[in-house]
Amino acid sequence: MHAGIEVAVPATRRNFSSDNVSPAAPEVLAAIERANGGAVASYGADTLSAELERRLCALFERPARVFPVATGTAGNALALSALTPPFGSIFCHEDAHIVGDECAAPEFYTGGAKIVGLPGAHGRLDPDALAAPIATAARMGQHACLPAVLSLTQATEAGTVYTPDEIVALTGLARAHGLAVHMDGARFANAVAATGCAPAELVAGVDVLVFGGTKNGAIAAEAVVFFNERLADHFTRRRKRAGQTWSKQRFLAAQLLALLDDDLWLRHAARANAMATRLAQGLSALPGAALVHPVQANEVFIRLPGRTVASLAQAGYGFYRWDDADAGQPHQPGIIRLVCGWDTEAADVDALLATAR
Amino acid sequence: MHAGIEVAVPATRRNFSSDNVSPAAPEVLAAIERANGGAVASYGADTLSAELERRLCALFERPARVFPVATGTAGNALALSALTPPFGSIFCHEDAHIVGDECAAPEFYTGGAKIVGLPGAHGRLDPDALAAPIATAARMGQHACLPAVLSLTQATEAGTVYTPDEIVALTGLARAHGLAVHMDGARFANAVAATGCAPAELVAGVDVLVFGGTKNGAIAAEAVVFFNERLADHFTRRRKRAGQTWSKQRFLAAQLLALLDDDLWLRHAARANAMATRLAQGLSALPGAALVHPVQANEVFIRLPGRTVASLAQAGYGFYRWDDADAGQPHQPGIIRLVCGWDTEAADVDALLATAR
Amino acid sequence: MHAGIEVAVPATRRNFSSDNVSPAAPEVLAAIERANGGAVASYGADTLSAELERRLCALFERPARVFPVATGTAGNALALSALTPPFGSIFCHEDAHIVGDECAAPEFYTGGAKIVGLPGAHGRLDPDALAAPIATAARMGQHACLPAVLSLTQATEAGTVYTPDEIVALTGLARAHGLAVHMDGARFANAVAATGCAPAELVAGVDVLVFGGTKNGAIAAEAVVFFNERLADHFTRRRKRAGQTWSKQRFLAAQLLALLDDDLWLRHAARANAMATRLAQGLSALPGAALVHPVQANEVFIRLPGRTVASLAQAGYGFYRWDDADAGQPHQPGIIRLVCGWDTEAADVDALLATAR
Amino acid sequence: MHAGIEVAVPATRRNFSSDNVSPAAPEVLAAIERANGGAVASYGADTLSAELERRLCALFERPARVFPVATGTAGNALALSALTPPFGSIFCHEDAHIVGDECAAPEFYTGGAKIVGLPGAHGRLDPDALAAPIATAARMGQHACLPAVLSLTQATEAGTVYTPDEIVALTGLARAHGLAVHMDGARFANAVAATGCAPAELVAGVDVLVFGGTKNGAIAAEAVVFFNERLADHFTRRRKRAGQTWSKQRFLAAQLLALLDDDLWLRHAARANAMATRLAQGLSALPGAALVHPVQANEVFIRLPGRTVASLAQAGYGFYRWDDADAGQPHQPGIIRLVCGWDTEAADVDALLATAR
Repeated sequence: MHAGIEVAVPATRRNFSSDNVSPAAPEVLAAIERANGGAVASYGADTLSAELERRLCALFERPARVFPVATGTAGNALALSALTPPFGSIFCHEDAHIVGDECAAPEFYTGGAKIVGLPGAHGRLDPDALAAPIATAARMGQHACLPAVLSLTQATEAGTVYTPDEIVALTGLARAHGLAVHMDGARFANAVAATGCAPAELVAGVDVLVFGGTKNGAIAAEAVVFFNERLADHFTRRRKRAGQTWSKQRFLAAQLLALLDDDLWLRHAARANAMATRLAQGLSALPGAALVHPVQANEVFIRLPGRTVASLAQAGYGFYRWDDADAGQPHQPGIIRLVCGWDTEAADVDALLATAR
Repeated sequence: MHAGIEVAVPATRRNFSSDNVSPAAPEVLAAIERANGGAVASYGADTLSAELERRLCALFERPARVFPVATGTAGNALALSALTPPFGSIFCHEDAHIVGDECAAPEFYTGGAKIVGLPGAHGRLDPDALAAPIATAARMGQHACLPAVLSLTQATEAGTVYTPDEIVALTGLARAHGLAVHMDGARFANAVAATGCAPAELVAGVDVLVFGGTKNGAIAAEAVVFFNERLADHFTRRRKRAGQTWSKQRFLAAQLLALLDDDLWLRHAARANAMATRLAQGLSALPGAALVHPVQANEVFIRLPGRTVASLAQAGYGFYRWDDADAGQPHQPGIIRLVCGWDTEAADVDALLATAR
Repeated sequence: MHAGIEVAVPATRRNFSSDNVSPAAPEVLAAIERANGGAVASYGADTLSAELERRLCALFERPARVFPVATGTAGNALALSALTPPFGSIFCHEDAHIVGDECAAPEFYTGGAKIVGLPGAHGRLDPDALAAPIATAARMGQHACLPAVLSLTQATEAGTVYTPDEIVALTGLARAHGLAVHMDGARFANAVAATGCAPAELVAGVDVLVFGGTKNGAIAAEAVVFFNERLADHFTRRRKRAGQTWSKQRFLAAQLLALLDDDLWLRHAARANAMATRLAQGLSALPGAALVHPVQANEVFIRLPGRTVASLAQAGYGFYRWDDADAGQPHQPGIIRLVCGWDTEAADVDALLATAR
Repeated sequence: MHAGIEVAVPATRRNFSSDNVSPAAPEVLAAIERANGGAVASYGADTLSAELERRLCALFERPARVFPVATGTAGNALALSALTPPFGSIFCHEDAHIVGDECAAPEFYTGGAKIVGLPGAHGRLDPDALAAPIATAARMGQHACLPAVLSLTQATEAGTVYTPDEIVALTGLARAHGLAVHMDGARFANAVAATGCAPAELVAGVDVLVFGGTKNGAIAAEAVVFFNERLADHFTRRRKRAGQTWSKQRFLAAQLLALLDDDLWLRHAARANAMATRLAQGLSALPGAALVHPVQANEVFIRLPGRTVASLAQAGYGFYRWDDADAGQPHQPGIIRLVCGWDTEAADVDALLATAR
């Protein structure tokens, strides 16, 4: 979502520009400290890495192989590289992070696979949009890339969530055509908190989930979770070769374990979601305001009067805006995105609302 | 243009599905035979390769470095790899051959650069469509690929041509933003023949042209022509490493020289263009017919009544059609593409027109 | 074998520097001319391509899938890309063409796999040299590339040949460790002619052979022959994406069919081999001469007195020499390579021998 | 150095198998905690990242651009990708980490460049070994990769160090041939501590240094330091595209700043070096012991009697051994590697020595 203009950099008040501007949770720092005792086996052969795999298998109620990495871009690109040959195509929503926000990391990691962005209301792919290019590719044969992967983002880049039924419909279609399924779960916690579903329900038909930690209270930690274990063969080599294997790999596992303990990950996400709802309710009550997407997770996309946007920027709030065409005309309405983090406080939200009014 | 459905395979009458179904010209075969005397230096260090470079410099009225290869896909992908870093983006028309007809060859050769398809009427990019993503990328910084290349197709995939003024406008915009310019000239001859311009006029601001021979009477020969000589540094290594350097490289040069002799390339193109015009005139006079794009080169895109399309197919003519949705409903109108080659005869055209009537 | 110094460029007398300096055989040109009739289906869907596959299946007495390409570098690199993941390693003789003569084409096509050159007398790998790095890689796990491919060259870069027993020993070891087997057959014809074996015997345990035509009388044509048909899945996409699929693919098949007709390929190879033997016998009888490798195919590696080498160069014969250290000291002995082609005449050989004496 | 056999996994006593088994320093953890306040700009636009760049410029007494990443493999591979085209070659010592310990990460990041391992006593390249392949490549032209990079490792993989004069000789030769120079500084601190030189002296002629933190007390942090600032253009894009840019990039900078504060990095390295010297002195006094390489940094390579090696393993010490051939013969002597970390204590060393005696 970096296609917008970042406003108020640096932010002098609460920075709503992303959930990755938040600090790490104290529980995460404490876990790193606990993991720091004595000489420990390198490159993932440590007990915390093993423990993390067990915990995620339990959480998702199925066998899985788990590979922590430091960034979501790495997790997504590595996972995709295990799902598609270089001559394959990856279908996803046209606003997906992998399309335009990762400087072609998926193309790099996959050796040049084709990412095909498809339309869909409110950030959600619809099955018909997926069926068409698969049919075209079948007709084109060698001239087109091999349809190889469906990539879903949960919660979506538009701050919405897929229901379990929608996931089943999409992953079912994918599997019927021989596609593997990747889920970008940078905000998977927000989707679980929003739907109240068991995590297992939200990954039906998914081959590999990138389970986000960084936006949700970690320093830098995501888990690549293969439910399709066969696809994980040689993944340690892929990760090593990408320079994504830490010699002190235990410090990645420790962060994610801290988030899983006592459901900290869900409590963080629930709070961020609640703050976004509070923000959406307050802002949408303003004259001239209109939500662009339903607010289902921790992001608010809203059209606001130009002077309101200007007031927020002047007050020092950080956020993104999309109104390139009239950047010089502050009285025109603009669309802005506000993101709440695990540490956003009601007071932050209320202060922004007061400014907006 | 393989996204359509190929009709009548194999064609039992004239195959209008592409200009690459045509044979090689007898002059090309004769040139190969002449080139076949005695032991000759390998890998491009032969006299014919040198002669070809001289001839193309003269034709384009400027210094250039010339590298023949066997296919247009290789020429385009190799040329692009010399113009963009792996983290760059290549802007082109959304229907360009490099977007969807080469099984991601440009992504392979460039190491994963991003191809960005842009809209534009009748296959021609318009400058405004180009300016927007360049501005967005500038704002996004490291999250977006570096705008690196403008790729134009002349004649376009829609069978239209850019005028010299349009080329100057687009290449000027590209250069103002630091982009290099590539021209896919698989049908460059048709564009020259259509406009009556000097070849030099049609490459103003172009850094590298892939000058097509295969569709115009060669067996398999295209010339990658660098007008920006600095960009050609190490191109012999790129070509060798791609397995595109023939040990008997003289046989590539010989084909292209045969086409340049006595303006055979222009005579071929002029004839193909004339046949397309004849075809367009005849078909567009039919009731219910409507040209989809102006016919400026050797391709005809036309909407025809369903029963006309069906008649052509039944008669055994080869062509492409785009009417997926109603494939089972022969009475619905459909869009078809008909391509004339260097060897298409007026009798071929007239026979088809008779069938269509 | 370009690591040597090419002598006498251009050669004013017979050029023995490589077998790729030879012209194409008249039968090959005639076949191209015959293939040039009328509009034909593009991209390999033609009857000659199908016929070539049938002929090679018969020749090798087993099912196979066949994909002609224009160059050996393309054939080898494409074949390897179908056998190894990007994180795999390819084991071969340290003098193999894929190690140092293709400007890293295999690395490009495979997405960065590791080529591991191993020692072996007279260009032939020995099984023990292969076993060691496989064991090391197993111990190193994710830090080392996955042992993926054994690549053999037949005839070897040293002008020797593997016997069927040697091939069985090496391919058996490879398969026992899960490696696929590639054979670089740029001079496969010479090996068949030299051993008198059935072609089938020389590919026991081989998954993919690149069957050379260019050095043996074609203009530019090699066939990638998959005996392991499963590995050929999607190979048309790999070839297309590499820009190695000709739209007029029939002209590649036609060349190879011409070589297969009436065993022309074997007659060419037998003659080249016989000329190399004649050359070796003559030269090794000179005082101070010593063969470096046994002469089993069409290449002669011989140490000669410095003044003999100098005489050959002055007389205008083309060849390679390896004596960097004493380039300025013409009286020191040097090692030279002389290659005979399908068109080398006894008179060429005898004239050179006369000069050498 | 993973080609050896890792002994005693897990180690029940001090693990000398690598310096990356050590924990992070308490100062590093404290710095992370200090960096954890409030919302901070993402992706490197934070004050700590800027501060780190200033500090390293001061340390090296010249302008530089600094890019922290989490792993040495990432740092090396990214740096190399900025120095060589995909068709380039990288020359380094045959035991360098980039040759065989990174699962072909450099090949991946560079798009398939060629890594050429060269000989040299005690892990140090000698200038003559470098000159030869450059000359060969010049002669081979397009058939060989373009000589592009010299990569030095300081301290070397053999636990030795280059003197400033040796560095000047090698980098001077490289620059004379147009090669860029990369320095793998995973143990650069140990080299500075060992030589007593100013850091600036050890990077004379170096274009980019990967300044190691992880082995020296960080959790996961290395700095890619470009002294040749032009080569750093677009490096943020390379890093982002590789998934190596943390959204919370400040936590990488914080670790390295903690090491720079009060020369902690040098104190750590000096201690590790001193412990290695102590170990070497003790062990080399044993009957039958012989150092394999001079001990100049924090690694000891020593040949020991078989029963001594066996005693150390049985006692639970972690280390690597190289004696594949006689693995089943414990009474044969073996070569082992012992590495001291920033936290190795004299008591650890003395206890091992007691066991060895």
